[in-house]
Amino acid sequence: MTRFFVTAEDMQPEFLVLTGENAKHAKVLRLKEGEEVLVCDGQGQECICAVSDVSEGQISLVVRHRQASQTEAAVRVSVYMAFPKADKLEHVIQKATELGAHEIVAFPSARCVSRPDEKSLKKKVERWQKIAASAAEQSGRGVIPEILVLASYKDALKRASQADKGILFYENERAVTLKMSLQTGNYRTISLLTGPEGGLEPGEVQLAREAGLDICTLGKRILRCETAPLCALSAIMYHVGEF
Amino acid sequence: MTRFFVTAEDMQPEFLVLTGENAKHAKVLRLKEGEEVLVCDGQGQECICAVSDVSEGQISLVVRHRQASQTEAAVRVSVYMAFPKADKLEHVIQKATELGAHEIVAFPSARCVSRPDEKSLKKKVERWQKIAASAAEQSGRGVIPEILVLASYKDALKRASQADKGILFYENERAVTLKMSLQTGNYRTISLLTGPEGGLEPGEVQLAREAGLDICTLGKRILRCETAPLCALSAIMYHVGEF
Repeated sequence: MTRFFVTAEDMQPEFLVLTGENAKHAKVLRLKEGEEVLVCDGQGQECICAVSDVSEGQISLVVRHRQASQTEAAVRVSVYMAFPKADKLEHVIQKATELGAHEIVAFPSARCVSRPDEKSLKKKVERWQKIAASAAEQSGRGVIPEILVLASYKDALKRASQADKGILFYENERAVTLKMSLQTGNYRTISLLTGPEGGLEPGEVQLAREAGLDICTLGKRILRCETAPLCALSAIMYHVGEF
Repeated sequence: MTRFFVTAEDMQPEFLVLTGENAKHAKVLRLKEGEEVLVCDGQGQECICAVSDVSEGQISLVVRHRQASQTEAAVRVSVYMAFPKADKLEHVIQKATELGAHEIVAFPSARCVSRPDEKSLKKKVERWQKIAASAAEQSGRGVIPEILVLASYKDALKRASQADKGILFYENERAVTLKMSLQTGNYRTISLLTGPEGGLEPGEVQLAREAGLDICTLGKRILRCETAPLCALSAIMYHVGEF
């Protein structure tokens, strides 16, 4: 069933209207009266609707059934990533969305080579949010992960440590595995943090430890900064029973 | 420690010589007499060597210690991927190498849009092999995964089913999870198969079942064809205790 995202305000109880990009998309698909579509608010609520009218730039829908999204993970995983170079963040946003991340949070750290300046940031976040929306639609999700940018590494630690479980992956950690970390405690929310190309500094790792995060290895091989969060996210989704 | 790959024939018992690209690389790194380097045969054997002489285009080494590679997974995972479009296969080769794949096998399937013609294939495989070598070096591996191309889907099934465990991921499978599949049997070798952009045909899935492969889901969300093998590989490495 074709999936459309609307704002939470546009999710009316009985009748919905698709406009703008959604109407254009519906036209491309040649939607006809009587056909069923899925409309999501991008926050986990969705409804199955029937097309009642197709006009220029506007598709009218009748709500048939409301439900919580069927494709969201039971555990909410937030992916915290130190700003990487170039288009790697876009890659991670697209893939982490497919893999079921609840939100994606970018932050600066000591060895970050690239960090967007204040001026360009607004446009970039808009672009990143669109990438997440597109990946959410394609993968059949009911939630569009929010893309957040924090001002400092300390802000990232503070926010990440509010999850039931916070995990930082560090290439020099040998003893503590992700499996060990996941085997203790009850958690409905997980934050996972990974560093930039040059890695995290020992002092930064120490700060994470003090903030209550588990410091874990991702194995004996050195993963690129864009591979690490996706590998960890895949393993976490596997661990919590998603597949 | 800097890592160089040489051919198995060049792995002499007491003295080694780095030439060609390796010598160029050593020059860029300004290697000096007495420094230690790691030399790998790309097949799981490596030795720690000391630089004994630096000449134009040639670095002489004395072998100090021989060992099996320390960074290879105990379970050998072969990644079988139906030919995707454009540069997605290159992406999977790079990432699967980082994640510890033993080999990467490309094959045609019914809905493959793209498959390289016979003429261009040799050059492409050479290029893919170079990508794997570069990723193996960067991630600190002792094995360079071999890149294989098979002529048919049936060839892929036949070869994949020779592993201790063969798993095919299918988007329409709902009941059998990867976790269920991995919880049965003893295995030192695993084959994982994923389809192209348009998915596998039901008939192809049936053939895989008949060949003895487990048909598994990767969860409720639809993964792109280049995301699926990397997600599965990450989960398998996690399951077998790599991190």
